[in-house]
Amino acid sequence: MPHISQKGQRMPESPIRKLVPYAEAAKQKGHHVYHLNIGQPDIKTPEVALQAVKNAEIEVLEYSHSAGFESYRKKLAKYYQKHKLDVDFSDIIITTGGSEALSFALGSVMDAEDEIIIPEPFYANYNGFAIANGVNIVSVMSSIDNGFALPPIAEFEKWITPKTKAILICNPGNPTGYLYSEEEMKQLTDLVLKHDLFLIADEVYREFAYDGFKHISVMSIPALENHAIMVDSVSKRYSMCGARIGCIVSKNKEVMNAAMKFAQARLSPPTFAQIASEAALDTPNSYFEEVITEYKERRDVFIEALQQIEGVKVTIPHGSFYCVAKFPVKNADNFAKWLLEEFDFNGETVMIAPAAGFYSSPNVGLDEARMAYVLKKEDLISSAKILKEALKVYKNIEK
Amino acid sequence: MPHISQKGQRMPESPIRKLVPYAEAAKQKGHHVYHLNIGQPDIKTPEVALQAVKNAEIEVLEYSHSAGFESYRKKLAKYYQKHKLDVDFSDIIITTGGSEALSFALGSVMDAEDEIIIPEPFYANYNGFAIANGVNIVSVMSSIDNGFALPPIAEFEKWITPKTKAILICNPGNPTGYLYSEEEMKQLTDLVLKHDLFLIADEVYREFAYDGFKHISVMSIPALENHAIMVDSVSKRYSMCGARIGCIVSKNKEVMNAAMKFAQARLSPPTFAQIASEAALDTPNSYFEEVITEYKERRDVFIEALQQIEGVKVTIPHGSFYCVAKFPVKNADNFAKWLLEEFDFNGETVMIAPAAGFYSSPNVGLDEARMAYVLKKEDLISSAKILKEALKVYKNIEK
Ligand SMILES: Cc1ncc(COP(=O)(O)O)c(C=O)c1O
Ligand SMILES: Cc1ncc(COP(=O)(O)O)c(C=O)c1O
Repeated sequence: MPHISQKGQRMPESPIRKLVPYAEAAKQKGHHVYHLNIGQPDIKTPEVALQAVKNAEIEVLEYSHSAGFESYRKKLAKYYQKHKLDVDFSDIIITTGGSEALSFALGSVMDAEDEIIIPEPFYANYNGFAIANGVNIVSVMSSIDNGFALPPIAEFEKWITPKTKAILICNPGNPTGYLYSEEEMKQLTDLVLKHDLFLIADEVYREFAYDGFKHISVMSIPALENHAIMVDSVSKRYSMCGARIGCIVSKNKEVMNAAMKFAQARLSPPTFAQIASEAALDTPNSYFEEVITEYKERRDVFIEALQQIEGVKVTIPHGSFYCVAKFPVKNADNFAKWLLEEFDFNGETVMIAPAAGFYSSPNVGLDEARMAYVLKKEDLISSAKILKEALKVYKNIEK
Repeated sequence: MPHISQKGQRMPESPIRKLVPYAEAAKQKGHHVYHLNIGQPDIKTPEVALQAVKNAEIEVLEYSHSAGFESYRKKLAKYYQKHKLDVDFSDIIITTGGSEALSFALGSVMDAEDEIIIPEPFYANYNGFAIANGVNIVSVMSSIDNGFALPPIAEFEKWITPKTKAILICNPGNPTGYLYSEEEMKQLTDLVLKHDLFLIADEVYREFAYDGFKHISVMSIPALENHAIMVDSVSKRYSMCGARIGCIVSKNKEVMNAAMKFAQARLSPPTFAQIASEAALDTPNSYFEEVITEYKERRDVFIEALQQIEGVKVTIPHGSFYCVAKFPVKNADNFAKWLLEEFDFNGETVMIAPAAGFYSSPNVGLDEARMAYVLKKEDLISSAKILKEALKVYKNIEK
């Protein structure tokens, strides 16, 4: 029998997947499970996007241009311009989710064994994209003690070698919720210019910034013209994760030419979803205002409730809709399993994502978990209550 | 300024893309261009598929399961079973087009620098997927002289090394239209069993077999249980290329586990398109009968007209909707450009795909071109007429 590749063996499982059977079992027992573990919002997709698909008069569902509908790219460029980003439609290639944009970015700037530096903890699928593309991740540690702020630049410089091709940041962060400050973006700019690296910014949560803090895009920094690659997505912005539409954006023509060749090889991004995404750009501002207000309120009630649990440590994230909390447990993985397998509070329990899967260094973040505040406020309050009750019991259980 | 990867440089341009500006220019001059160059059918997408999307009641457009809707996989398994293929729903992962299935297949069974043997000429994007995945293609020559039949097995064996992990066939073939016989499939089976290789079969044109010839799937060969990987797609079957839905199918659990990890990293295939694809399985048989009859008639009129052109050589393809013809020219690339740039017959011209881009060996197939009979019969007749008139003029032009 022929065997699979080493790559196929090394591909990580999703850090959440292994808990799924436990969640299933909890549901089988009749327990209600609050899903804090995934970034699948419960927010309604804008009506204008869904209606556009219903109203589309299609006879032959054709391939689109490999870079996506020209009309969509033009309208999307306007959206960025409105947000004061210097993006022309020719700087955009529409991709199948931000996921594909990440793959294209890695493929376009990195060869086998090249290195990319990423502050950890980071979005776990970066590991998968790196392995699939045959490149290596070098991680630089950020810490819950300062809310996962940018690690000192000296930490990055320590790891820069001739193999280093890029630095990847997620801003605002998944899993951290951290929003990089102007000063931090300036430090990163100086760093990539000094070492002539690409700065890839995963900005799929770009609209989710709270408390008056402003998201600073790599595309708003003129000095990065040739160095910046932005990854974006409609998944979270319009709560349309199932569309599978994102984009890769850069003013570096060499990068865009390379990305275009990857785009051509896979022919085109999905047509229905492009229709929805193009229409979504007409979503009224009031939608975003409501959504941002809703997430901010959710964050406020959830973080406050978490902070009141004895032994739990969590800082206030200013962006995205995740937080990483430190629990008074030795092993959050065991705790997460136990919550599903053994515990319930009035027939209810919660599913959390152990944070170790978001670190690339071994044995780090073992007592941390990521939680997404993508549920209604009442549910978040119940979830925090359950965690509080659970920890009271668990401290006598964990040896 | 930081530079792109070698991979990004090596990624091939689509063999058709470089002709696009010439086609645009021809249209600017007011010439009508018959597009024989791409496999975008003009056949209508089944109403049942389009209606399902219109009727879908969606409030939140969510990620689906990474392997695709379970309901879709179950129904798809039934479709394969109806075609006498031993496929269970757990043997299927829904992908974003056959394109993504090809990527997952390569990633799951091959590491950097591993080799895959492919009879040439082959679907040009295999080059792109190979480069993107860091693996090498070793090609074995097939010839227009016997309609691009399977090259002798000894030719394959000559190239098998410890780095060889798989053989990839496209059946029926793009660009060749060749449908492998039972005897050829048996030879391939013996070969992969003997050398313990995977046999990856790109069967995206599986329904397009004419003249009573039967398509023989790798999934219908019990001995290949652990060796076969099938790539399929709804793009051509239901004329819904823009959906971007395909699948990877294998009974080898190790392969499916690996493919599943690639699938999880990119989260999910597109939701709207899965709704359409699942519904498309209810397309009445009469649709296929009509479509196959239509393609067969198109092939017949087109091939017959081509055969009547002096100096043109073409054999009758029994599958897909392409043919490769040899033209009485030194360089089909120049000829294709000239057709667009300099020639018209009553204000009309044709766009063909020079075949050199489908060969991986250099300087082969220079006088050949691929043509897709995806246009109405009248248009195919006009196209052949234009080619005939063009060749009369061109023979005095090409030195
Ligand atoms: C940080 C980050 N980047 C990229 C993605 C990919 O999203 P998509 O492919 O749905 O656009 C996600 C999804 O959760 C994410 O959290
Ligand atoms: C031989 C072959 N394989 C795979 C594909 C990919 O098709 P898709 O990604 O649309 O399923 C094509 C498309 O033309 C093809 O001709």
